[in-house]
Amino acid sequence: MYLPQPISKLIEGFMRLPGIGPKTAQRLAFFVLTMKEDDVLDLAKALVRAKRDLSTCSVCGNITDQDPCHICSDKSRDQSVICVVQDTRDVIAMERTREYRGLYHVLHGAISPMEGIGPEELQIPELLKRVSNEEVQELILATNPNVEGEATAIYLSKLVKPFSLKVTRIAHGLPVGGDLEYADEVTLSKALEGRREL
Amino acid sequence: MYLPQPISKLIEGFMRLPGIGPKTAQRLAFFVLTMKEDDVLDLAKALVRAKRDLSTCSVCGNITDQDPCHICSDKSRDQSVICVVQDTRDVIAMERTREYRGLYHVLHGAISPMEGIGPEELQIPELLKRVSNEEVQELILATNPNVEGEATAIYLSKLVKPFSLKVTRIAHGLPVGGDLEYADEVTLSKALEGRREL
Repeated sequence: MYLPQPISKLIEGFMRLPGIGPKTAQRLAFFVLTMKEDDVLDLAKALVRAKRDLSTCSVCGNITDQDPCHICSDKSRDQSVICVVQDTRDVIAMERTREYRGLYHVLHGAISPMEGIGPEELQIPELLKRVSNEEVQELILATNPNVEGEATAIYLSKLVKPFSLKVTRIAHGLPVGGDLEYADEVTLSKALEGRREL
Repeated sequence: MYLPQPISKLIEGFMRLPGIGPKTAQRLAFFVLTMKEDDVLDLAKALVRAKRDLSTCSVCGNITDQDPCHICSDKSRDQSVICVVQDTRDVIAMERTREYRGLYHVLHGAISPMEGIGPEELQIPELLKRVSNEEVQELILATNPNVEGEATAIYLSKLVKPFSLKVTRIAHGLPVGGDLEYADEVTLSKALEGRREL
């Protein structure tokens, strides 16, 4: 089937993005033709700028356009707590709570022997350097509540034992708005185990 | 919540596309950061080129990078049949069948009083000019099988009556691979009505 080259190129481009198959790519490409030229230019520029201007923070590993990132360089934040997460998107999720005012450390993954990811692939030496600083008093392990995340949390908690600091893990339990009836048994037993006095 | 400006700009850009909400836009934007720079540049260029280099064919209204488009200028195609469709994407769908070797005419919509689209919003004068050419012998009305498409087909069939040419409508019936049990009654009665001798 023949399509003008500019549109077939654009469809190919969209198909490289995750979760976008041929049908969606075609729909998006035809939508682009109906967009205002300025909006299309904006999107094209945003793509290039995002790729070129962003890098990872040399302190925490978060994605940033300045180094150190705005969180690491914000002196009003609590410098004594570091929250360890797997991914930049987890930082965004944590920040959305507006509850946490400490610092972050992004591991860029979790230990996963199945995928061949060992501790040496993660930003762990950088973390050890940071916790060796006496100012840090608590390390919150906020890796994902799955096998890889748990393994990483346990590994890290053992690794930082020599440094005298409090190591905590975020709570497991029922999600707010959830339903006891539909909770899986592992979550439910974790929720029981983590029960607190009212 | 703070995000570096290049990434928030990109998220905004993706959110202008249809069917992409904040969550998907964020996922796509973070994916772009992991892509090779060349691939990102390719996508950005494809966006700009698709918008700048494509226009509508002055003959049939199809989207094209040359004028007249490759279908209108292909002398090996049957110049005596014109298939009337609502949208460029319908041309692609028809071409995918590899059955049809005639020409097209893209209306860019269908008559829809609800949305305030009357016949004057569609590429109808251009169609009349084409059918007044004696070479054209058949007009296939392939607008969508819904209220707007039907109304447009009926309107067009009346409009071209003065020109002595065959006017046909694509068949309604059960889709191939469909199930009689799950067919709606309107489709089923159309399928009965359109039955053919074997």
